[in-house]
Amino acid sequence: MPRAEARAIRHGFPWVYANELVLDRRTKALAPGTLAVLEDAERRPMGLVAVNPLSKIAARMLDRAPDATIDEAWFEARLTRALAHRARLYEAPFYRLVHAEADGLPGVVIDRFGGAAVIQPNAAWADRRLPELVAALQRVTGVTTVLKSATGRTRALEGLDAEGGVLAGERPGGPVAVPMNGARYMADLAGGQKTGLFYDQRPNHAFAAGLARGGRVLDVFAHVGGFGLAALAAGAESALAVDGSAAALGLARAGAEESGLAARFETREGDAFEVMAALGEEGETFDLVVCDPPAFAPAKPALEAGLRAYERVARLAAGLVAEGGYLVLCSCSHAADLARFRNASARGIGKAGRRGPLVHTGFAGPDHPLLPQLAESGYLKALVFRL
Amino acid sequence: MPRAEARAIRHGFPWVYANELVLDRRTKALAPGTLAVLEDAERRPMGLVAVNPLSKIAARMLDRAPDATIDEAWFEARLTRALAHRARLYEAPFYRLVHAEADGLPGVVIDRFGGAAVIQPNAAWADRRLPELVAALQRVTGVTTVLKSATGRTRALEGLDAEGGVLAGERPGGPVAVPMNGARYMADLAGGQKTGLFYDQRPNHAFAAGLARGGRVLDVFAHVGGFGLAALAAGAESALAVDGSAAALGLARAGAEESGLAARFETREGDAFEVMAALGEEGETFDLVVCDPPAFAPAKPALEAGLRAYERVARLAAGLVAEGGYLVLCSCSHAADLARFRNASARGIGKAGRRGPLVHTGFAGPDHPLLPQLAESGYLKALVFRL
Repeated sequence: MPRAEARAIRHGFPWVYANELVLDRRTKALAPGTLAVLEDAERRPMGLVAVNPLSKIAARMLDRAPDATIDEAWFEARLTRALAHRARLYEAPFYRLVHAEADGLPGVVIDRFGGAAVIQPNAAWADRRLPELVAALQRVTGVTTVLKSATGRTRALEGLDAEGGVLAGERPGGPVAVPMNGARYMADLAGGQKTGLFYDQRPNHAFAAGLARGGRVLDVFAHVGGFGLAALAAGAESALAVDGSAAALGLARAGAEESGLAARFETREGDAFEVMAALGEEGETFDLVVCDPPAFAPAKPALEAGLRAYERVARLAAGLVAEGGYLVLCSCSHAADLARFRNASARGIGKAGRRGPLVHTGFAGPDHPLLPQLAESGYLKALVFRL
Repeated sequence: MPRAEARAIRHGFPWVYANELVLDRRTKALAPGTLAVLEDAERRPMGLVAVNPLSKIAARMLDRAPDATIDEAWFEARLTRALAHRARLYEAPFYRLVHAEADGLPGVVIDRFGGAAVIQPNAAWADRRLPELVAALQRVTGVTTVLKSATGRTRALEGLDAEGGVLAGERPGGPVAVPMNGARYMADLAGGQKTGLFYDQRPNHAFAAGLARGGRVLDVFAHVGGFGLAALAAGAESALAVDGSAAALGLARAGAEESGLAARFETREGDAFEVMAALGEEGETFDLVVCDPPAFAPAKPALEAGLRAYERVARLAAGLVAEGGYLVLCSCSHAADLARFRNASARGIGKAGRRGPLVHTGFAGPDHPLLPQLAESGYLKALVFRL
């Protein structure tokens, strides 16, 4: 492979793109997920990689040791290391246990919910080695139920199917209660979005909740009630959760019930833009307004339209914030970097005739580590303004 | 003034640069800090500004209302608003109360230490109006002691002297105890750096402390013990604080004493680079290593040398981190943006033969708000790696 790319790999970059590799006919015919030893231009071994001729990411670095064996013991070592970090961070076993490349398991995401875990094997090498991974996962963590989620958008890029299922134990009979920030959230592990609950916003939920005491909270794009329930647990007077999904709001209400917060919690089903516009016309204001929309700019072609959508969210939401209140705007778009998202948000706030400083910038929680070489891809951003 | 700049001002940009203004001879002769009404190219009033013909920032926006009166009542309104935000954030009255432009008081920084406050009036308009500001500050907050710190580097750019002093009440007889993150820090309000204690690292202290439980901590460039004492309060086994200033380390030891943590706290006076190299030769390792150096790249001309210094810090510090331990690297350099600082840090870690994901990126705490238009100037960055 070319020198510059070899240097990047030596410095920790975890991927080889298809256009960087000299693939002979035999290599091109390899089954997705086949292991191979990566060599530099002088044919010196650089490490053990998983090859996928179908993907733009032609090779993913699995181990710097070219002679590593990818077996159950190898998975156990990686999982033990990942677990030690989470056990240090959290008292209860509810977290993202494995965050792909940064935890040494390229393309693999594992979320833990107490005695259950949901695996997203979003790379072919891991999809082919699920039995070893599942056995190691059970051994290291003691989880009894392991589910496979195959909804990740990246699976298609790897040539993988979209079939989830039960890998160990039994499918939970209903939603699982997840303790976070003083509230209990209901996660539908089998039927929810991705893995049923997003752990990434945990520190941003906590920060926003700290501002909500005694106040009225509006949680737009609420999903299962992430910001709203945390705010109520921290002493907010009331929370209104808005979402387009009746199923998500049902789980949010069940979480409020389970947390003993139902008396102060309301939901409104509908299109977020329309509901915000309607609340504006009703003259409603809130002390804390949160908007955590789906990715409007997941990839570069959608960037301009995505930024306009973020600006529109900011404009509608800013109009609902009481004088001296707070506005939390989130983006989980890879393509919209921090500066672009901040500018779009500030423009929207300005168009609502409002103004105010940025008091906090937050990212995904520490159970979502990043390789420094891929840190630009830190997709989740949360901006907190005081208006 | 030119249209583009007028638009920026209308959208919240708080400054007019000297080269953007048409300054006639009379304006050039104005005393620094004189108030004036800013007009656009069509001579429509845009707001009340403070003019300083000596400064590159020729005018600072004080009030969007051109007919505002900058008197004690005006200061009271701004301070009341600033106080409401801090009172919501913190239980005890120890925080940055005013963070300049973002709190509506351009160039003015006020740190509060219980019944005492330290003002940095780093713009001429405020330096000329200290009596009104001090009276309003006492009325709004109830502080009895008000000190003036004139050590800010920006004062010279405004043509101001470097003379501090007592503005109200009496100079404290000794260091003041400041409760933060479960520890008590000693702040020398009269003789310390800037205002004697930096509140900006509070959330980063807290995050790092959460990783330190049961571990050995090395706090390099420790000043009065910021990271080390918080880590001990959170249950670290031991902390070693390194600093070049005997006075700072004396305050750190006094803080450890005051916090009941002295038995687990040690200090070593000396050049940080030399001490880290010596610890490396001694074969010492720590579960958490923190480096919070002074600004190596305060402004653009110092950028390249500054980044090399950050890389060197990262290299020396990474070698002292135990396997699976954590490394916290901070920068308070305006010129080194987040991506540059992260790259320099990753390079240094790599040169130490280490590798590991970034688990957290933190900024200054929420008592240090930023105007979105100046958010690029968010100077403080803290990166947490797991090695």
